[in-house]
Amino acid sequence: EEAKQATSNMSDPYCNDPRRHAALKPASVKPFNAELPPSLLVESFLTPNELFYVRNHLPVPEVDVSAYELEIEAEGTKKTVILTYEELKKFPKHTVTATIMCAGNRRSEMTKVKTVKGLDWGAAAIGNATWSGARLRDVLRLAGIDEDSKEFNHVQFEGLDMDPTGKPYGASIPFWKAVDKRGDVILAYEMNGQPIPRDHGYPIRAIVPGIVGARNVKWLGKIVVSKEESDSHWQQNDYKGFSPSTDWDTVDFTKSPAIQELPVISAICKPSPGQTVTVVDNHILVQGYAWSGGGQKIVRVDVTIDGGNSWHVATFDHQDETPSPQHWAWTLWSARIPIPKGSKNIEIWAKAVDSSYNTQPESFKNIWNLRGVLSNAYHRVPAELKWKR
Amino acid sequence: EEAKQATSNMSDPYCNDPRRHAALKPASVKPFNAELPPSLLVESFLTPNELFYVRNHLPVPEVDVSAYELEIEAEGTKKTVILTYEELKKFPKHTVTATIMCAGNRRSEMTKVKTVKGLDWGAAAIGNATWSGARLRDVLRLAGIDEDSKEFNHVQFEGLDMDPTGKPYGASIPFWKAVDKRGDVILAYEMNGQPIPRDHGYPIRAIVPGIVGARNVKWLGKIVVSKEESDSHWQQNDYKGFSPSTDWDTVDFTKSPAIQELPVISAICKPSPGQTVTVVDNHILVQGYAWSGGGQKIVRVDVTIDGGNSWHVATFDHQDETPSPQHWAWTLWSARIPIPKGSKNIEIWAKAVDSSYNTQPESFKNIWNLRGVLSNAYHRVPAELKWKR
Ligand SMILES: [Mo]
Ligand SMILES: [Mo]
Repeated sequence: EEAKQATSNMSDPYCNDPRRHAALKPASVKPFNAELPPSLLVESFLTPNELFYVRNHLPVPEVDVSAYELEIEAEGTKKTVILTYEELKKFPKHTVTATIMCAGNRRSEMTKVKTVKGLDWGAAAIGNATWSGARLRDVLRLAGIDEDSKEFNHVQFEGLDMDPTGKPYGASIPFWKAVDKRGDVILAYEMNGQPIPRDHGYPIRAIVPGIVGARNVKWLGKIVVSKEESDSHWQQNDYKGFSPSTDWDTVDFTKSPAIQELPVISAICKPSPGQTVTVVDNHILVQGYAWSGGGQKIVRVDVTIDGGNSWHVATFDHQDETPSPQHWAWTLWSARIPIPKGSKNIEIWAKAVDSSYNTQPESFKNIWNLRGVLSNAYHRVPAELKWKR
Repeated sequence: EEAKQATSNMSDPYCNDPRRHAALKPASVKPFNAELPPSLLVESFLTPNELFYVRNHLPVPEVDVSAYELEIEAEGTKKTVILTYEELKKFPKHTVTATIMCAGNRRSEMTKVKTVKGLDWGAAAIGNATWSGARLRDVLRLAGIDEDSKEFNHVQFEGLDMDPTGKPYGASIPFWKAVDKRGDVILAYEMNGQPIPRDHGYPIRAIVPGIVGARNVKWLGKIVVSKEESDSHWQQNDYKGFSPSTDWDTVDFTKSPAIQELPVISAICKPSPGQTVTVVDNHILVQGYAWSGGGQKIVRVDVTIDGGNSWHVATFDHQDETPSPQHWAWTLWSARIPIPKGSKNIEIWAKAVDSSYNTQPESFKNIWNLRGVLSNAYHRVPAELKWKR
């Protein structure tokens, strides 16, 4: 079947994409974008590599690691440094546990208010992994870049993935984040202790903890330290937030900043929407995740089944110990919610609070935006109850 | 009148408090706590010293600057360093423009949902000033404290203000914030170019930009670098957030973190609630402030008069240029809102979005907490319209 696909699609730029796990539900096939059923997502604190959501913008490049070269350029200077895969591995190895989330996670809920443009992600365009590699700040220092320089404002990344015209995927992050000793930005070659899989950036991916997935550039080919942001489509004309009253006729992409740190979010993963849930000892079990960008830690998750008249504080089943502002990993939580006798249908809501005491907005109406990003309103999941007797 | 007050209150610990500007509306007199009418607040980007909100927990101490000593202790060592006022002024002078806000700002709106405990602050327990002083990181370095030390987690501050038993006001901030090169924490001796007024901490106040007012300790007398947080009442059993369902019977103050960075907030300052507003050319003018803790910049303020069916993006009248995560000052904004013909009564709502794309919660019901802190739901101001003809 693999052979057949290859021969029948020789002119298809996606024909060399890797095989994917059957549990991943595609939001699009070319490019490949897929997520897990949410109920599987909360099975493990570290998302297994083969089950990690995939968000590709272009075909997956085939990289020969023995020929791999990372180019590092400081704009305005003649300095260019080239590092091979083996050279990158010689830097001190730094490991972080970091959640990566797509800016469009939970878009399918926002689009119910009014149509938005983008992949129809459910609540599982997010995953958590340990990533190991060279610290970007170490690499930039070797390339002669002073972390206190006022010459630079941004660090641009280019992928080895290209559109039909040969233009690569690109994004940038703020210079301060790249060089900050607490920023934990790495050029990763391992994901959960394995070489990074092709779908996740083999051989090298920029891991920028606390920052939107779109800046965690896969198949990293080039780094440019610059005064300016990346001029790529994805930095300039996509992945930005707007007012609910901004439409495609009035939008001006220069008016909003590129998304970097993501706001606080949570989701209910069990039960799934519309699922029948068994009431045991007058309680049901609700499970989910919560996360915040910028290294903020989740400090509380509240759950209600009566529209906010009573809130139940969730228990954290797994949260790593790192304090903010370097808390990069999600929190898995659960709550045993008491059910009033005789209830048949409920709607479960969850909201999280982070270490800056930021919390989620209540509804999508007032955060709606034309690209359907930053979709972090309260998660509301209807469930049908079955009483155990 | 001043003399009379002094003689009649010789045993009153508050009898030596300074005189205050008549525009400050007290929320309490002993200790003195007061704010401006919101309409005056947005008159200037830098709040004049005499109009800056006052939040005192105890009597204002009288400090003889020639005898002033700041004690700096590294816990677990024998090291203690003493610095005089003149010695503090010899460090490189660092100036930051930073907004300081009380955790209880806008409490009076939250308490309408259900009674909370605390001073009944309106929307003006906030102010913006330039502060100059010695960088705390420079002072700690001189005191022999290594910024990369893993021995310390917190920096505790003690005020020279004391309760009747002689216990000082106290608070602490995270060690990383104290030493971070982008943290901008200073031991300030100037406020808007003048010696810090007595009500604001003369002669030395810890200015901790992006962090709740309660940790910006006035009349600073002692610094302790420690593994532990301050054990003061205000750090341990106050200034913490809780779930809306937590009441005074169930609250456990050990379960929530001390407030440090504040979440995104905004307020409408003109018109004031219930004010009659003149409609000119079918528009009204709305003005206010927006701010976010942690060095996040305000990226958008949205205003609606139809319950969110249409949102108007406000203009920034004054925002300083510093990028996040060192954007410490508030943003003053205004919006000219079109009014449908014949409207007589409206409710104006405002909400802000910060550079992490965090936004405000919609209503107080779901963020209610027993101390009435973190009261950052949408500001909703009713106004009566008068049509100019
Ligand atoms: Mo994304
Ligand atoms: Mo405060």
